[in-house]
Amino acid sequence: MQIAIVLFDRFTALDAVGPYEILSRLPDARTVFVAERTGPVRADTGFLAITADRTLAEVPRPDIVVVPGGPGQQEQMDDEPLLDWLRTADATSTWTTSVCTGSLLLAAAGLLDGRRASSHWLALDRLARFGAEPTGERVVLDDKYVTAAGVSAGIDMALTLVGRIAGDDHAMAVQLATEYDPQPPYDAGSPQKAPADLVEKLRSGSRFTLT
Amino acid sequence: MQIAIVLFDRFTALDAVGPYEILSRLPDARTVFVAERTGPVRADTGFLAITADRTLAEVPRPDIVVVPGGPGQQEQMDDEPLLDWLRTADATSTWTTSVCTGSLLLAAAGLLDGRRASSHWLALDRLARFGAEPTGERVVLDDKYVTAAGVSAGIDMALTLVGRIAGDDHAMAVQLATEYDPQPPYDAGSPQKAPADLVEKLRSGSRFTLT
Repeated sequence: MQIAIVLFDRFTALDAVGPYEILSRLPDARTVFVAERTGPVRADTGFLAITADRTLAEVPRPDIVVVPGGPGQQEQMDDEPLLDWLRTADATSTWTTSVCTGSLLLAAAGLLDGRRASSHWLALDRLARFGAEPTGERVVLDDKYVTAAGVSAGIDMALTLVGRIAGDDHAMAVQLATEYDPQPPYDAGSPQKAPADLVEKLRSGSRFTLT
Repeated sequence: MQIAIVLFDRFTALDAVGPYEILSRLPDARTVFVAERTGPVRADTGFLAITADRTLAEVPRPDIVVVPGGPGQQEQMDDEPLLDWLRTADATSTWTTSVCTGSLLLAAAGLLDGRRASSHWLALDRLARFGAEPTGERVVLDDKYVTAAGVSAGIDMALTLVGRIAGDDHAMAVQLATEYDPQPPYDAGSPQKAPADLVEKLRSGSRFTLT
């Protein structure tokens, strides 16, 4: 089972590495990081680079497509080679997935028309403008399209997908192996739960903003 | 504030990228991935490589040290240049931290003698053999030493640390920006919660085993 994770300049690293860590534990998983060019691709902070081992053209028919988000997503919205690749890969994929603002790229490629989908909470409005039906849910499955909320939600998305593909026992074994028993020290992980002034601060575009 | 994240062959990617994603949002964070040599360092699956931008020698006095774990940790247990660097960096660090079996490396460097510490649940026994006092807790703070349980626990560790360093409001803003409102589809993330047969399977060393 080939899993292609797309990289582009200024992606958000955890968007990509969360699903990578979980999906790579599928039976017979062959995960490959792909980009327009091979070589290191720098994340949004500038502090981290992940190697793209293959070009998009070298991986035309992955079983699973994973598209992360991040501030760099905006520059890819009219990147025809990437959008073309997404459409081509999607034509034969078993699952087409995204994390965070990666769903905006799937939508820009025309893959989410009329579909329920998720994205970073700050990007849900924009998702609607591209013809998708945004929900505030953490993981949204609509046919073979699986979209996750912001950044850390890719872990939940991937574990959900492992359950669908390999069964609950395998998914639970992966959860146990990665000791995914989250215990956040605060309960501020969604705009419904966080203090209103923090939600406003992020909405008004502070340096925390990811999208 | 300089944050040094150590890389070595066959590290577990989420161990490193979880804390990276959270700690890089500290005010004035300058995160740097370090290894004995610069260039791409391949994770345990073989599917992912992160670039080490600096050698250990080039980063002698980070404010925060983060040591990930992974199957490759074992080969580093008598790697004197790495252990020496850990001791030197620790002499001036504000926080010395680890995720998963990274705590075994801190212990091998002699930094956890008599200290309460955590590790991947499959590695707690080994941690005791190096003079630490293992606990099953997800995040353990003992003076400036902060050790986390397996793989995904680095996110909770880092968020705890952001709260200590920059205050609760900043930490909650980081939690909201990364939409860290975990909703795992199963409740099998610890040996106390997972079905006993899965716990046994991992204990007996299946391919899921990380340590």
